Amino acid sequence: MNDQLKKTDKSFIPACPIPISQYSKILVAHGGGGKLMHDLLEKIIIPTFNNPELEARHDGAIIELGKTRLAFTTDSYVVKPLFFPGSDIGALAVNGTVNDLAMCGARPLYLSAGFILEEGLSMDTLWRIVQSMQRAAEVAGVKLITGDTKVVDKGKGDDIFINTAGIGIIEHGLNIGPSSIKPGDVIIINGDIGRHGMAIMSAREGLNFESTIESDCAPLNGLVLKLIESGVEIHCLRDLTRGGLASALVEIAETSNTGIEIEENAIPVRNDVRGACEILGLDPIYVANEGRMAIFVKSTDAKNAFEIINSDPFGINASIIGTVTDKHAGMVTIKSSIGISRIVDMISGEQLPRIC
Amino acid sequence: MNDQLKKTDKSFIPACPIPISQYSKILVAHGGGGKLMHDLLEKIIIPTFNNPELEARHDGAIIELGKTRLAFTTDSYVVKPLFFPGSDIGALAVNGTVNDLAMCGARPLYLSAGFILEEGLSMDTLWRIVQSMQRAAEVAGVKLITGDTKVVDKGKGDDIFINTAGIGIIEHGLNIGPSSIKPGDVIIINGDIGRHGMAIMSAREGLNFESTIESDCAPLNGLVLKLIESGVEIHCLRDLTRGGLASALVEIAETSNTGIEIEENAIPVRNDVRGACEILGLDPIYVANEGRMAIFVKSTDAKNAFEIINSDPFGINASIIGTVTDKHAGMVTIKSSIGISRIVDMISGEQLPRIC
Repeated sequence: MNDQLKKTDKSFIPACPIPISQYSKILVAHGGGGKLMHDLLEKIIIPTFNNPELEARHDGAIIELGKTRLAFTTDSYVVKPLFFPGSDIGALAVNGTVNDLAMCGARPLYLSAGFILEEGLSMDTLWRIVQSMQRAAEVAGVKLITGDTKVVDKGKGDDIFINTAGIGIIEHGLNIGPSSIKPGDVIIINGDIGRHGMAIMSAREGLNFESTIESDCAPLNGLVLKLIESGVEIHCLRDLTRGGLASALVEIAETSNTGIEIEENAIPVRNDVRGACEILGLDPIYVANEGRMAIFVKSTDAKNAFEIINSDPFGINASIIGTVTDKHAGMVTIKSSIGISRIVDMISGEQLPRIC
Repeated sequence: MNDQLKKTDKSFIPACPIPISQYSKILVAHGGGGKLMHDLLEKIIIPTFNNPELEARHDGAIIELGKTRLAFTTDSYVVKPLFFPGSDIGALAVNGTVNDLAMCGARPLYLSAGFILEEGLSMDTLWRIVQSMQRAAEVAGVKLITGDTKVVDKGKGDDIFINTAGIGIIEHGLNIGPSSIKPGDVIIINGDIGRHGMAIMSAREGLNFESTIESDCAPLNGLVLKLIESGVEIHCLRDLTRGGLASALVEIAETSNTGIEIEENAIPVRNDVRGACEILGLDPIYVANEGRMAIFVKSTDAKNAFEIINSDPFGINASIIGTVTDKHAGMVTIKSSIGISRIVDMISGEQLPRIC
């Protein structure tokens, strides 16, 4: 314990590495899943905590305890409105963290829940949210076993924020993550994109389309484990949340230092979602999803993997959208319907704030 | 997966068990560690998630994975001001969760960090907070290995909220928790109480005392593990955070269905803290601490335990404050300096909002 005391010397804090002239204050876009958030993580968070688990830049950390290999992850949920077509903040808080564990190839087992409630929140709203969390937990096969509740004064929060952290067990020998990606890998997505973001936007802005666009919010652990149990050699998994398909692929290309080539025609987007995106001036590849993932598999396993995914209820509109190449390392290119390739960039600002 | 889909039927949500006529809205006191929070947990949270880990009403959940026994816990930190005498929200977010793991008798290993930032937060403030978190993590011997950052619009948060979840490993056969408490157990606290709460209050209200009261914020895992390694039979541990010593003991008496008797004279309170409490009309036994715990040990181990605690830098003002009895089960009594016993109640309202 004397060592513990000695280390409490607080004499020196190095200067902040994001110069004040650049961004002296947090902007909404620092939470948007794009370039500014990337900057914040790369300059402030990762260098400070400085360890290989964070350096892996994966959806969760993989740790070994005794002979048990675990995945550990966390997300806070600040979505507005709290209830939206197809889901709500409670189910989202469960599925989002379940999916982050699934993206590590883990079987999600346990979640924690930390609530930050704003004074004045309706008790009935809280009740409906926790009921939805429990229902989502049952569907995903996880248990909420520990938690915390804080209340902040009126005007210092926004009804409710929920943090969930999750623990999952890894029961196979695969190393699923950006570092396992190889040229030749085939990239599959498990369905049409853009629905979650458009469901939130429609609810928030009171937009009315002919049909209601419902969030794709869903647990992906069952589908991932089915693939692993079928012997598919999965190299990487990434759920397509903040920043959408584009930001996920750019991040993976950079981390794995490989090139990614995708085809616009192969990316399923529902007509109503495409229409809503056009009205709002958004590109669906940047729109958030909460039940969609990119699955990187060994090329010889691609056909088998596609069939398994496509026959699952959470993979009905699955599609093979591209491949990994040894050309243009660190970059993603997209080939348009008329055959022209362009570079896909990470989203720079904040396309849709508070989407999750 | 078909099972997963089937379970998504959302047809029925039972009625909220806290009747609207009673508390239709969340009050600040629902986060205060007292009766209203107790009510919220007992009526809304625990029945909804309904599992034995939550039913244990411990600082963390204990789970078994393969042959590994783990503790898992979470807390959100919403303290104001962010920096206060003796510590800051960053160190608090690390030590608070480290201590919850320690209270399970676990060796804390890994933490997650979820940040909810308000638009406009100074980048330099964030930098100083994460630096402080890393320093506290080094002192406590844990690693921050996974995280998440969300940004909410100006006016919808309060600079920064931090959630940390933690995983620790349990390397001994003791069952540390309220259910292990037995009549005859001796209760030790590891130092003077009330400093954290009074440090926050002084900073917040601009109160000036002759000396600055500094928070007792500290990691307790080293001391707890030292006791366990010395063979002390610990029955229960509880850190004395929101609601202070009194609320912690009342909660333990209720959960374990035993009686607790403590002596006012035996509870160390520094003179400056006592003076500040008198000015503000507070009772130190209800004031929050962040480096203090109640340690329930087998009576024959009490002397040895006290010596170990008292010789540790984080146990300098340790004191034996009382015992567990088979009389007045579920209740705590305190004997005053003039020998009169009274029943200690859980705090009913919110003594000090946003203390952690």
